[in-house]
Amino acid sequence: MNQRDTLYINQSGRLIIGGCDAGDLAREFSTPLYVMDEAYIENAAAEMKRALNEVYPDSLIAYASKAFACKAMYGLVSRLGLGADVASGGELYTALSAGFNPKMLYFHGNNKTAPELDEAVKAEIHAVVIDSLDEITALNAAAAAANKKQGVLIRVNPLIEADTHRFIQTACVDSKFGFSIENGAGEAAVKKILAQKNLQFLGIHCHIGSQIFDIEFFTRAVDKMTDFIAALTKSLGVSVRELNMGGGFGVAYTASDTPPAAQEFIRAIAQKLKDCIAQKKIAPPRLIVEPGRSLAAQAGVTLYTVGAVKDIPNVKKYVAVDGGMFENPRYALYNARYEVALALKAHLPAADTVCIAGKCCESGDIIVGETALQKAEKGDLLAVFCTGAYNYSMASNYNRNPIPPVVLCKNGSARYMVKPQTYPDIIARDCDYAPSDKEPLS
Amino acid sequence: MNQRDTLYINQSGRLIIGGCDAGDLAREFSTPLYVMDEAYIENAAAEMKRALNEVYPDSLIAYASKAFACKAMYGLVSRLGLGADVASGGELYTALSAGFNPKMLYFHGNNKTAPELDEAVKAEIHAVVIDSLDEITALNAAAAAANKKQGVLIRVNPLIEADTHRFIQTACVDSKFGFSIENGAGEAAVKKILAQKNLQFLGIHCHIGSQIFDIEFFTRAVDKMTDFIAALTKSLGVSVRELNMGGGFGVAYTASDTPPAAQEFIRAIAQKLKDCIAQKKIAPPRLIVEPGRSLAAQAGVTLYTVGAVKDIPNVKKYVAVDGGMFENPRYALYNARYEVALALKAHLPAADTVCIAGKCCESGDIIVGETALQKAEKGDLLAVFCTGAYNYSMASNYNRNPIPPVVLCKNGSARYMVKPQTYPDIIARDCDYAPSDKEPLS
Repeated sequence: MNQRDTLYINQSGRLIIGGCDAGDLAREFSTPLYVMDEAYIENAAAEMKRALNEVYPDSLIAYASKAFACKAMYGLVSRLGLGADVASGGELYTALSAGFNPKMLYFHGNNKTAPELDEAVKAEIHAVVIDSLDEITALNAAAAAANKKQGVLIRVNPLIEADTHRFIQTACVDSKFGFSIENGAGEAAVKKILAQKNLQFLGIHCHIGSQIFDIEFFTRAVDKMTDFIAALTKSLGVSVRELNMGGGFGVAYTASDTPPAAQEFIRAIAQKLKDCIAQKKIAPPRLIVEPGRSLAAQAGVTLYTVGAVKDIPNVKKYVAVDGGMFENPRYALYNARYEVALALKAHLPAADTVCIAGKCCESGDIIVGETALQKAEKGDLLAVFCTGAYNYSMASNYNRNPIPPVVLCKNGSARYMVKPQTYPDIIARDCDYAPSDKEPLS
Repeated sequence: MNQRDTLYINQSGRLIIGGCDAGDLAREFSTPLYVMDEAYIENAAAEMKRALNEVYPDSLIAYASKAFACKAMYGLVSRLGLGADVASGGELYTALSAGFNPKMLYFHGNNKTAPELDEAVKAEIHAVVIDSLDEITALNAAAAAANKKQGVLIRVNPLIEADTHRFIQTACVDSKFGFSIENGAGEAAVKKILAQKNLQFLGIHCHIGSQIFDIEFFTRAVDKMTDFIAALTKSLGVSVRELNMGGGFGVAYTASDTPPAAQEFIRAIAQKLKDCIAQKKIAPPRLIVEPGRSLAAQAGVTLYTVGAVKDIPNVKKYVAVDGGMFENPRYALYNARYEVALALKAHLPAADTVCIAGKCCESGDIIVGETALQKAEKGDLLAVFCTGAYNYSMASNYNRNPIPPVVLCKNGSARYMVKPQTYPDIIARDCDYAPSDKEPLS
């Protein structure tokens, strides 16, 4: 955990998040608790905007909202002047419910359903990012039915094999996403779009992967994408007004992670684009980048209460907390790593190497596989850092555990972004068992 | 998929589940849709009960409800005369809401919270299965406060390393669960329980893992557990009235899986217990087994509509459906395998080897990595088999996709077990963003 003004250990060893004492937060909101540091998000967004505008003013930062989506997050992001990308009808609905300007929205996804395309068209969002040939026909039909002209980008695959986890590596040849540039599928898609009456071709999009630490993957992608812009201009005479380079900027989950700051990725992308424009003599497109994890992950801290502490002599010490894979599935999914501390005793030296386990009835329900920790006892408050992305957004009711609330902290004030789920909430859609009477009861 | 009376392909190549045509189900309830075959569960429960009662009448089958928990499932299981185990306050709440007899409930978990222990005591459930020393004190305090005597088992670790996925292997030395028998922790726990005024020691529990295919692991565990019963009787003079052998009976997800039937596991456990009782001269305990996956998995079929079909020449063909890791995370979590078919064209021969992808904005969002399939086109109905366990129970709102409904089918009648989630449901707990005013708004 990198200490900062809005996330630090005070002299008494107590963790302070957005000016709020972790012990006070736990007492007021209970545990497990997702805590978001508002100033971190504000500062990260400001740094990214500054870097992008300095190098390439005709540009937009769109928050990749799948990282952490709820009304308050869309509201905050909107207030910071960012656009957003949504990846489903549910994210679109949430963004619109938060009052997000639809003209700042991009809709991604490899398999948008027909209702989702209708919802996007009716909301008059800026652009649908088309991912398959069938979608071109389907979206044109939806737009025609609504008597609208829908702006579109296409997602293409520039064949950059980024060095990251196989599950979050997306721009290799073998991907469910996008059109290959190399085999001509991308150009064929643009041609098909140009033939549709109710679609307006705006540009091209790529997303080369997630949690990438090497800037060069992005500059290589810009090179490939601008080659494609030049080729499209030449072959189809089409104007490519937008270049959306996606996201995937790596984040430091632990001290051994040393990625460049998100603004360095963005600066490099913008500079490379300027260079390519000059060199390849293409019309300057608008540049869009889509940070998700790099805006949200480090803003988040999860607070837990320690329950069972189990020392298996000569084997391992388990520290079990009141959360688990239902609210943080990233160890189970990706073998993820996190840094931790006892939130009210963080000034003490690490006493043990422990495994932080959850409360789910499953051996793989681990939050941190192995970490140094202060001596933990039942009742201690444990903080897991860098949990702002892909924790709440992936939370489930596994074992029917309620999904914890999310609070947003700034200047010592904490308020709900998402309220706690209750047991009645969990069974709200459950029906009573009734024996079949051979007639549908639906 | 093993065809059976209540799950088969008819002569027109249409999938029939519990007498319901898959096409009718999709039209009436939309997709994605979890479908449960009621008769399968009834028959599986009956077979298990018969095997157990034939060999060892003083016994109980308790459904391991984490596999698939909702009110209608507890209701059905209760009607079939089974007990259940719950692994959280949420599962307990759901079971009680369904009218489940608390005297048939066991409460498991490595880290039950203080409120959960209170809830268990107040509900007067049959037994809490204690997992740590701290829990003994905490549960005794909860029972004392309620002026009750709570029945307890302890979870012990008989050190059987079952041959299964590391994440679902639970009885090795290195486990967050239970007390080791070998190092004396188990006996120490029993001693501590006997010293508590408000706890009644009932017996011992183990769970050696999940998706186990070899009966011998269970018979070895019975041997170890009865050794422990003999040792406890001798050293502490305690009567061990219950032996709960847990579950973990393997299920055939594909034709290459060939586990014994669940009743064969159960029969072998019961027979081994009889032999051990005679041989070790111990007082016969009540025998409990806890099937979860083996009751629910094969009952379930998930129906999807095919959306984008993407053929990457010489690489792979992706068939994308309207579900994904939000409703079936088992490929992402465990690299799980399933069998599939086009539900209305299942008489046709397999035409392709394809990858079944979901609609989430993530490369790892795959449902089946590689499978033979009939030629799939946009709009086709796809069935994935053996999805009744650990699919709905692990479902999330990742990408804010709504959790699909569950319907229960029998004799051609289909009715909701769980109703569909709507967009308003998804944002029900979301708060609007409001700038900090330095005062808590909670």
